[in-house]
Amino acid sequence: MSITIIAPGRNTEELVEYIHSMDPGIEVSVYPNHKLDASMVIVWNQPKGMLAEFGNLKLVSSLGAGVEHIMEEDLPENIKISRIVDSDLTISMVRYINMVVLYYQNNFQLYLDYNSKKLWKPFEKADRVLKIGILGAGEMGREVALSLHNLGFEVLTYSNTSKEITGVQSYSSSDLTMAEFVSKINCLICLLPLTPQTEGILNFGLFQFLPRSSILINVARGSHLVEEDLLKAMESGYISDACLDVFREEPLPVSHPFWNHERILITPHIASITNQKNAAAIVMENYKRLKNNQSLLFEVDRQKRY
Amino acid sequence: MSITIIAPGRNTEELVEYIHSMDPGIEVSVYPNHKLDASMVIVWNQPKGMLAEFGNLKLVSSLGAGVEHIMEEDLPENIKISRIVDSDLTISMVRYINMVVLYYQNNFQLYLDYNSKKLWKPFEKADRVLKIGILGAGEMGREVALSLHNLGFEVLTYSNTSKEITGVQSYSSSDLTMAEFVSKINCLICLLPLTPQTEGILNFGLFQFLPRSSILINVARGSHLVEEDLLKAMESGYISDACLDVFREEPLPVSHPFWNHERILITPHIASITNQKNAAAIVMENYKRLKNNQSLLFEVDRQKRY
Repeated sequence: MSITIIAPGRNTEELVEYIHSMDPGIEVSVYPNHKLDASMVIVWNQPKGMLAEFGNLKLVSSLGAGVEHIMEEDLPENIKISRIVDSDLTISMVRYINMVVLYYQNNFQLYLDYNSKKLWKPFEKADRVLKIGILGAGEMGREVALSLHNLGFEVLTYSNTSKEITGVQSYSSSDLTMAEFVSKINCLICLLPLTPQTEGILNFGLFQFLPRSSILINVARGSHLVEEDLLKAMESGYISDACLDVFREEPLPVSHPFWNHERILITPHIASITNQKNAAAIVMENYKRLKNNQSLLFEVDRQKRY
Repeated sequence: MSITIIAPGRNTEELVEYIHSMDPGIEVSVYPNHKLDASMVIVWNQPKGMLAEFGNLKLVSSLGAGVEHIMEEDLPENIKISRIVDSDLTISMVRYINMVVLYYQNNFQLYLDYNSKKLWKPFEKADRVLKIGILGAGEMGREVALSLHNLGFEVLTYSNTSKEITGVQSYSSSDLTMAEFVSKINCLICLLPLTPQTEGILNFGLFQFLPRSSILINVARGSHLVEEDLLKAMESGYISDACLDVFREEPLPVSHPFWNHERILITPHIASITNQKNAAAIVMENYKRLKNNQSLLFEVDRQKRY
């Protein structure tokens, strides 16, 4: 029984080290130098259809919390699916979003530019005050909302079902439409799960209800955004700045127009990073359980798809 | 009776606009196009000795919370001194420090650099976890400590008298020396008031007790730092990165070696920005009170020097 990791564009050296520190004898191969006889495969953004090549496959584990990249594969029913659930993911997301919001609120981009020009130029004009709107108010949305509220920001959330978050104005789709919601804010943060209903939800039809020169932060999934619509909304002035951590194609191709846009900030899907040590512990536990025919940690319900 | 503003290097247009919006008839002149007959002068980093040229001077107001730049002038006893007290200052400081700490913790500098190179390269090696030490635990130190604790950071404070801050390890000088304190942390934030005891407190003698590759953030006063000692501590490896918002000479001269150091981040004294609208309201209130011989808002006690 061996393990294969397929996560192109991600550095998994540390994961392999942790696995070996727990069981030096275990055989671990990493794509593209992988072996096809593995019974357990750990995947993130795997090349489509590739899992079908594994003849002994018993368990596919996501390297993160999301499993949509595995569900797409239509694996035979006898292959189990699991995911990594890690409390560090939330604090990582909270820190990332706090940093990005403060980066924009404090005109930090400007000061970094002034640094390179040796320019001392305090920005003292009344700043635009960011008014934060968060799409999605699950565990992460809630914690992000509270943290920004603690920093003195006005925060609104929008979700399917109404929530109670102290100090935060929480709206549901029965209170108002998403278009009405985004007209109330000037900094839109997407933290939605990816479902057929939310695919492409960040589109020009929505953006045109934002006040002019709004900010977009997408840290959920690349497929939430209609990428050409962001460029159109930036040309039309609805959106002045965007910070994107997720993309329809990852790694983002060098030829992608986002790279050339000076007001689009790109980070390589690192907002919410799985702690490799925690991931390794879960992988190893499930490896043992699989071997002993025991029930798995964080096994995915095929019907519910999570 | 007229008002003069002397604040070289700061944009005070907005302050003047707010004053005029409250009283369009009031005469306001701004250095270097100032008039010498003003009875009220608002100052920040004024050229030394300049206040002596004003023949009708009755009140000198600081444009910020600190008044050490006014106390240095040894003004005649009949001239009153006041300052701006603004609750927005604390939240501004909290936001600035949160941003800078997260910028370092999240390797954001690296990702900005990768943006310009169109490089998709997630940094997945175990990050150094920042352990925050705050010098000074007054109103600002306390709020900064709490906000960083809320983001999951381990936070320690050091002050003259011991404090109680939930979730934060608070030390006083009777618990341990400052050298012992800095040996426990790897990100040192200075929020001390400037007094004869704290002038030059950030020096090589202290820096050499920091763990190697520590971070220094100075947002208090430029004179807390022995500037050449920072460069020495960076050369010796005690400090890897510094973010400085305050300097011995402001604006920081173009010839200053800090500008050329790629691991020193410079911001132009903006961490804690006086809200110009709040400042204008206090200025106008004191202008009226001065005219009517009433007691002033936020008048400084000459003996206590604050």
